[in-house]
Amino acid sequence: MQTVEVALADRSYPIHIGKDLLAQPSLLLSHLTRPKVVVVTNTTIAKLYLDGFLAALTNNSIDATPVVLPDGEKFKNWETLNLIFDALLAQHCERSTTLIALGGGVIGDMGGFAAATYQRGMPFIQIPTTLLAQVDSSVGGKTAINHPLGKNMIGAFYQPKLVLADTTCLDTLPTRELSAGLAEVIKYGLIRDLSFLEWLEAHMEELVARNGPALEYAIARSCINKAEVVAADEREAGERALLNFGHTFGHAIEVALGYGTWLHGEAVAAGMVMASSLSARLGLVEDSVIDRVRRLLRRAGLPVAPPSIATDKFLALMAHDKKVDAGKIRFVLIERPGKAILADRVSMEALREVLTQPTIALA
Amino acid sequence: MQTVEVALADRSYPIHIGKDLLAQPSLLLSHLTRPKVVVVTNTTIAKLYLDGFLAALTNNSIDATPVVLPDGEKFKNWETLNLIFDALLAQHCERSTTLIALGGGVIGDMGGFAAATYQRGMPFIQIPTTLLAQVDSSVGGKTAINHPLGKNMIGAFYQPKLVLADTTCLDTLPTRELSAGLAEVIKYGLIRDLSFLEWLEAHMEELVARNGPALEYAIARSCINKAEVVAADEREAGERALLNFGHTFGHAIEVALGYGTWLHGEAVAAGMVMASSLSARLGLVEDSVIDRVRRLLRRAGLPVAPPSIATDKFLALMAHDKKVDAGKIRFVLIERPGKAILADRVSMEALREVLTQPTIALA
Repeated sequence: MQTVEVALADRSYPIHIGKDLLAQPSLLLSHLTRPKVVVVTNTTIAKLYLDGFLAALTNNSIDATPVVLPDGEKFKNWETLNLIFDALLAQHCERSTTLIALGGGVIGDMGGFAAATYQRGMPFIQIPTTLLAQVDSSVGGKTAINHPLGKNMIGAFYQPKLVLADTTCLDTLPTRELSAGLAEVIKYGLIRDLSFLEWLEAHMEELVARNGPALEYAIARSCINKAEVVAADEREAGERALLNFGHTFGHAIEVALGYGTWLHGEAVAAGMVMASSLSARLGLVEDSVIDRVRRLLRRAGLPVAPPSIATDKFLALMAHDKKVDAGKIRFVLIERPGKAILADRVSMEALREVLTQPTIALA
Repeated sequence: MQTVEVALADRSYPIHIGKDLLAQPSLLLSHLTRPKVVVVTNTTIAKLYLDGFLAALTNNSIDATPVVLPDGEKFKNWETLNLIFDALLAQHCERSTTLIALGGGVIGDMGGFAAATYQRGMPFIQIPTTLLAQVDSSVGGKTAINHPLGKNMIGAFYQPKLVLADTTCLDTLPTRELSAGLAEVIKYGLIRDLSFLEWLEAHMEELVARNGPALEYAIARSCINKAEVVAADEREAGERALLNFGHTFGHAIEVALGYGTWLHGEAVAAGMVMASSLSARLGLVEDSVIDRVRRLLRRAGLPVAPPSIATDKFLALMAHDKKVDAGKIRFVLIERPGKAILADRVSMEALREVLTQPTIALA
């Protein structure tokens, strides 16, 4: 087991990463105000892990109530969130009860937002069960639900007391979701950690084969990278925006196709190729860097070009991204592998060139 | 104009208190990230103040969009909150837009919660138009909406950038609401400020007559008291609980009668008499203190006894108050006028005696 500390003053917390952590409730005990928890999960994860987890909690004299939500991004809304509030109130949960989110990004985002807002804040523990959630949403305290007019439009910055990233959970993860998680892992290498990028280039097949120690290393190093960024910029005022590398393009892809057609990580993968391509067109990097990015993403099983979307539609979707400031599109570019920068004024000509490059259809 | 500074490190903010502040948008200007605001108010306040306020903003080149909500506690729910989100999204508001809440406690709580959660947090300015909101919710950053199973059950701690308490707005406040606000003013004297209590005993008739300078002084001193408590305990872990003097009884009264039958301040007034009475029964203060509390509340036009509620029902309602920790009822008592304390283990016999005292019917 490895532990990464997220340093946020009085909101600091540890991330434990390793195998079979779900079977070790002793890891949780010292983080509970009192031995009462509500476990928020979804129907898919419940079938795989809930009974065992609840039994382990009960054996440690922890009063645990499950809240099983329907599975899917389309349920990341107020109605489903309210099911958590209903359960908390029905159980007479007080502010000292701890909410545990057991699941992927949707469960983490909704569980975290419920914890952030139930009685103005209750303790929160996150047990991410997908690679994407382990390397991305487990660090940074972003919680949210969707609004019919926009994804993640309603939410809060709210830090957990503890994160358990159990690599054993990745054994049951669909291959496509494992790849999608690797997109964010590769992102950390590209934007700020050249030696990690090189490690990934040397070990990608082990990750795809779900080699435990390799996954543990990649998750820990991803969390360390994100934790450093978040510690420097908790409320996303500056450096944290670099984490959006590939995301402005990626979000447009997700919206154009309808959320869920491509997974978030797949859209980000194509988006990172596009952002690299834009960086090359603006003279920041050589064209060979685009190929290097493509090669690694392909080995991770990820798409390296966007689907077919009309250029004007693509532009319009990017301009509505909530990360746009004052009406301008802000891009994250790379000036070399391992170093990302923010660019506010990108030539529309270069951008259009990137948007009119070859596209692909994903099965 | 007086200014009270709420000291909360990087979340500190000023409260300006005085007459005709609504007509002085220059007070707002330096607190806006950019000249774009959304003004959240209700139908009642809109009739009185919205046109003038919007005109003043427009004259100062501030782009202002109004969001007019239905008036009343029963609309303090998710559906109404969503009207704010709909408007923010329809206007393509970014995180740099400022939300201004113009109204009483309901508008402040809902506007504040919308600001706390829209895109995980946008700047917030509060312009409380009732005495209660000016002396209570303008300090401390509590925001919330109600859930069918409980009041203020979903919310956030979120500090405004600025509060404008315009005493001119109190000219249009119904008398009963003015009195309800005075209950919280008197509370500050009772729990931690003997000389303010004495000042109130000397000047209550001026306050009831809405004398401007007297109101300005009472509001400022109330805000200073609350600001000191909140600065020491932003997240309500300890001292802040003392602000709930009279509230455990008061909440039970509000719930028993149905919210809105008695105003919050009226229920708190009766609750403060009951808490004083409990303090006397436990030997903390002389019986004369109860009379002193009753006398001042009566001069403010407030009830000094609860309505008729069966004792067991009263007890059950108190035990469900969300401020109850670990299943026990925690009381705020006074050990002398101007000094409140927390008491966790109160004799059930003394409590029952207080609950079986004479009751009153409020018109």
